[in-house]
Amino acid sequence: MTDTKVYLLDGGSLVIDGYHVFWNRGPAGEVRFPVYSILVEHAEGRFLFDTGFDYDHVMKVLPFEKPMQTKEQTIPGALGLIGLEPKDVNVVFNSHFHFDHCGGNKHLPDAKKICHRLEVPQACNPQPFEHLGYSDVSFSAEAAEARGMTDQLMAGTTRANSTFEGIEGDVELAKGVHLIFTPGHSIGHYSLLVEFQTRRPILFTIDAAYTQKSLETLCQASFHIDPVAGVASMHRVRKLAEEKDAELMYSHDMENYRTYRTGTQFYG
Amino acid sequence: MTDTKVYLLDGGSLVIDGYHVFWNRGPAGEVRFPVYSILVEHAEGRFLFDTGFDYDHVMKVLPFEKPMQTKEQTIPGALGLIGLEPKDVNVVFNSHFHFDHCGGNKHLPDAKKICHRLEVPQACNPQPFEHLGYSDVSFSAEAAEARGMTDQLMAGTTRANSTFEGIEGDVELAKGVHLIFTPGHSIGHYSLLVEFQTRRPILFTIDAAYTQKSLETLCQASFHIDPVAGVASMHRVRKLAEEKDAELMYSHDMENYRTYRTGTQFYG
Repeated sequence: MTDTKVYLLDGGSLVIDGYHVFWNRGPAGEVRFPVYSILVEHAEGRFLFDTGFDYDHVMKVLPFEKPMQTKEQTIPGALGLIGLEPKDVNVVFNSHFHFDHCGGNKHLPDAKKICHRLEVPQACNPQPFEHLGYSDVSFSAEAAEARGMTDQLMAGTTRANSTFEGIEGDVELAKGVHLIFTPGHSIGHYSLLVEFQTRRPILFTIDAAYTQKSLETLCQASFHIDPVAGVASMHRVRKLAEEKDAELMYSHDMENYRTYRTGTQFYG
Repeated sequence: MTDTKVYLLDGGSLVIDGYHVFWNRGPAGEVRFPVYSILVEHAEGRFLFDTGFDYDHVMKVLPFEKPMQTKEQTIPGALGLIGLEPKDVNVVFNSHFHFDHCGGNKHLPDAKKICHRLEVPQACNPQPFEHLGYSDVSFSAEAAEARGMTDQLMAGTTRANSTFEGIEGDVELAKGVHLIFTPGHSIGHYSLLVEFQTRRPILFTIDAAYTQKSLETLCQASFHIDPVAGVASMHRVRKLAEEKDAELMYSHDMENYRTYRTGTQFYG
């Protein structure tokens, strides 16, 4: 059997303040960080984890995050680099629905959609401090209707093709593809562990730890709903990485990201 | 019967970043904000709410907060301005134990001490993101021992004279002096409502809302343990102020603070 392959789909970059990357610790000042999605080619199907940000959305709602994104850094563009089209993706799993993790969902009407069961309700009715985080609701007709933001919906996005199967706790989505429940950053946040036949597992922290330094210093991002849970999730990620001898990959760590394989290169 | 009098004891000022005052919203940049304590002269006794920061502690541990504090802005100094000495205070209540609310406790060994029952345990074992907040443990021999920081204890501070009576929920500490449980900023945070015979009540938000704008925009400070609870507490403070027709006073709002009565002036 062919081994699982993991492709990182480069999604461009954004800018936030150092106080947002390292909550209350900083230092202050602009930090440009990468955004990417994770495509898992697996015997059981083609799974896409997260879908990056939508350039037009960010320019309209959060232009101060100074988005940079080429055509090849959109979901259709990045899939195209490896000879795929959006319709080739069987399952989309969103770690959470902050705008930089769900902006490309709209391009995948045919895929089955899965997330934590509390994430869509949260996107429908976010805390006041989460409004910018959950500002792109184009991934869900339900959320767009709840928020009065149906103007965000792309033609063709319907309740039927944007309804999510809700899960909770840890779930093995396919053999060796483990969703690790790591709440704190958002109410239903997941990290991702992928096991291979031929190499060390990879543990994608997703936003439980933006950067290596975040995890090493237990300093979560300033964007969060439950910082106590966030610390517990970081402890959990550290322990799991050790137990599984997993390679850790971070969500928004430019220095490490430059060493990651992207484009046509893959892991596995 | 003499009406209750409320004196504000000016405690100097500190500097933090705009992203700390208005969590994730800012704008960025240095903000100098006031620190003060609240003395309630009441038929049932003399109650002191919070005790400001200790200049030497801040210079040693958080010099980047650029403390400004004259002798008259210490607890002994501010009490002296109104003809009192520390031993004249019967009860010290701490809204929570962040360093800018408990730095002067050490000067009040004779007063009875009260706080939420979870605040001392939290100061003994803070979350990683709370270490600077709970960095001054001179208010409690127990906390100083738990943290290995007994060097902070002033000569004469003992377990016996720094032990707190723990409360929970709302408590009427003396007739018309209401402790309002408003968690979020810290695990056991309280606001304070004082009723008078001859004037509108005053509702001190304490750190449930640093500033008027914070409360109006439901934007809590970046220092918090449970932001969802923090939002609920702000809603509660707003509702209570309306129900009681109370004047709102904020903890760290320089613009409003300039209009507050301090020194020998009082409310009531």
